[in-house]
Amino acid sequence: MPKIIIGVMGPGRDATTVDLHHAYELGQLIAQEQWIVLSGGLNLGVMAAVSKGAKSVGGMTIGILPGADRQFMSEFIDIPVITGMGSARNNINILSSDVVIACGMSTGTASEVALALRAGKKVILLSENANENAVENRFWQYLGADLVAIAQHPEHAIALTKDLLAAS
Amino acid sequence: MPKIIIGVMGPGRDATTVDLHHAYELGQLIAQEQWIVLSGGLNLGVMAAVSKGAKSVGGMTIGILPGADRQFMSEFIDIPVITGMGSARNNINILSSDVVIACGMSTGTASEVALALRAGKKVILLSENANENAVENRFWQYLGADLVAIAQHPEHAIALTKDLLAAS
Amino acid sequence: MPKIIIGVMGPGRDATTVDLHHAYELGQLIAQEQWIVLSGGLNLGVMAAVSKGAKSVGGMTIGILPGADRQFMSEFIDIPVITGMGSARNNINILSSDVVIACGMSTGTASEVALALRAGKKVILLSENANENAVENRFWQYLGADLVAIAQHPEHAIALTKDLLAAS
Amino acid sequence: MPKIIIGVMGPGRDATTVDLHHAYELGQLIAQEQWIVLSGGLNLGVMAAVSKGAKSVGGMTIGILPGADRQFMSEFIDIPVITGMGSARNNINILSSDVVIACGMSTGTASEVALALRAGKKVILLSENANENAVENRFWQYLGADLVAIAQHPEHAIALTKDLLAAS
Repeated sequence: MPKIIIGVMGPGRDATTVDLHHAYELGQLIAQEQWIVLSGGLNLGVMAAVSKGAKSVGGMTIGILPGADRQFMSEFIDIPVITGMGSARNNINILSSDVVIACGMSTGTASEVALALRAGKKVILLSENANENAVENRFWQYLGADLVAIAQHPEHAIALTKDLLAAS
Repeated sequence: MPKIIIGVMGPGRDATTVDLHHAYELGQLIAQEQWIVLSGGLNLGVMAAVSKGAKSVGGMTIGILPGADRQFMSEFIDIPVITGMGSARNNINILSSDVVIACGMSTGTASEVALALRAGKKVILLSENANENAVENRFWQYLGADLVAIAQHPEHAIALTKDLLAAS
Repeated sequence: MPKIIIGVMGPGRDATTVDLHHAYELGQLIAQEQWIVLSGGLNLGVMAAVSKGAKSVGGMTIGILPGADRQFMSEFIDIPVITGMGSARNNINILSSDVVIACGMSTGTASEVALALRAGKKVILLSENANENAVENRFWQYLGADLVAIAQHPEHAIALTKDLLAAS
Repeated sequence: MPKIIIGVMGPGRDATTVDLHHAYELGQLIAQEQWIVLSGGLNLGVMAAVSKGAKSVGGMTIGILPGADRQFMSEFIDIPVITGMGSARNNINILSSDVVIACGMSTGTASEVALALRAGKKVILLSENANENAVENRFWQYLGADLVAIAQHPEHAIALTKDLLAAS
């Protein structure tokens, strides 16, 4: 039986302080459920924070790295998958995740949300302004309809994840 | 000297009638400039319409196909590039284009716009409701800032393309 | 600290009985060293046998799958990485492995050995006729020179792996 | 109707003088048949020589580039396809070619021959020592059986290509 893998996507260089706090807490909560955290694996932004959070409580982390070696990898990655294919690896991130959580928004994150919806995957959006009126939430709900859920805070994202896993 | 390649991205199955008319006209206008049309290559939606438009005036067309063979390819593709990598090929679409035009919006198109902005490429959005208030335009301008331009109609998209090529 | 990942490549449909025995034993030996087994993840040939061997002694297994979902996955995979990119994923297999062991030979395996050598990775060849005269061994040694080592049996492959890890 | 695309694969940095002469002549002969030359697109070895040969007689050239931009591209490429995926693009090279010709041998070329055979594509081997006894020819014939043909010189490779196209 394969393990449950939760993909946490989010900004690298442009992560906000709130994004980073959310990501760290998500990492802890995911690990406490015995799920595996999957991220883009770099030592940067949400990728680093979610992996650090998971490791802080003994969780396991996968990093799907864009480069051709382990350069720039977060030290909190247990299992590095080296793709050497740049942003095309974003499609692997989402295909490999049982549930995708977007923690903040950036161009890279937007590509992952879009690819997830393209593949028919459910996506949970957790953003700094997690209300129905934020432009990104409205955009993704317009594109993804029922596949998109909005989380108000990390615990909410985990509760929504449980619902999605139970329904799948 | 490599030829100038204009990528036209847009919905497949969910293209609107306006998207298809825009795409056909874009194909004609791009070909008349002696530029090459690049698309996702399938016999579907904007991909098929832009290629058909280009061929209607003797242009040249490249299709970056998601499948592992020529199945589902548009008959209006001159140069099929067979990637066998599904939606991960969307990153090739935008990296290979001198300018990216999004003709309509869908999850696949959104991934291409996002990947283009991620790679620092300029994107021209041509949509059915091409006004500044449409939720997708606002979202992409919020994410992409100066990299995003809004076109009101196909001729406008070509004029913006010329400006971008002249500046590059 | 990332875990040590040993990639075991080998024939799927065309695996010989000896290849399958070798693969199962390799899986056990790798797991007993607390290393992770990485394979192509399918329920077929060497991929399935090495994963089954690793799980028989409580090891951990990663499968880098060619398809866009978990169809055809071996039941002995803990961590499925879904690439959706067909044989292009062979490059990920070798980039992600600290050491690559080829257990038998096929066209897919040959592509992995070649890509490993291209990336400057050491490769251990373990084949049914593991003598210096076999045509495949001679070919790979001609191409890869010092990067190629020949193992006579699974325990030999593990000993060579230890040497390579110690030297890296 | 898509154009006929002939993929010419071969060593980059390690190309021999004979490989380069063969590649240049192959480029000319392919272009004279009105076929398109596809290569890895770099300004290096067989890729550069075959593209230069094709352009010397007014042919058309496609380059499937490993990098994320046009850096290191041969000046003899008409249509650059930018993949940003390193050696994983080798699979695109062969999937996109109607016939694959290997002009010389290297680790990269070996991966392309193997991937071509994996995909069930016919491959023509044109090497410096193009006799049945050369170790690489024997290896590929052992792996690929009927899919592999040996060419003695560039004109022979073109004659074999015509036979393969006629049979397909």
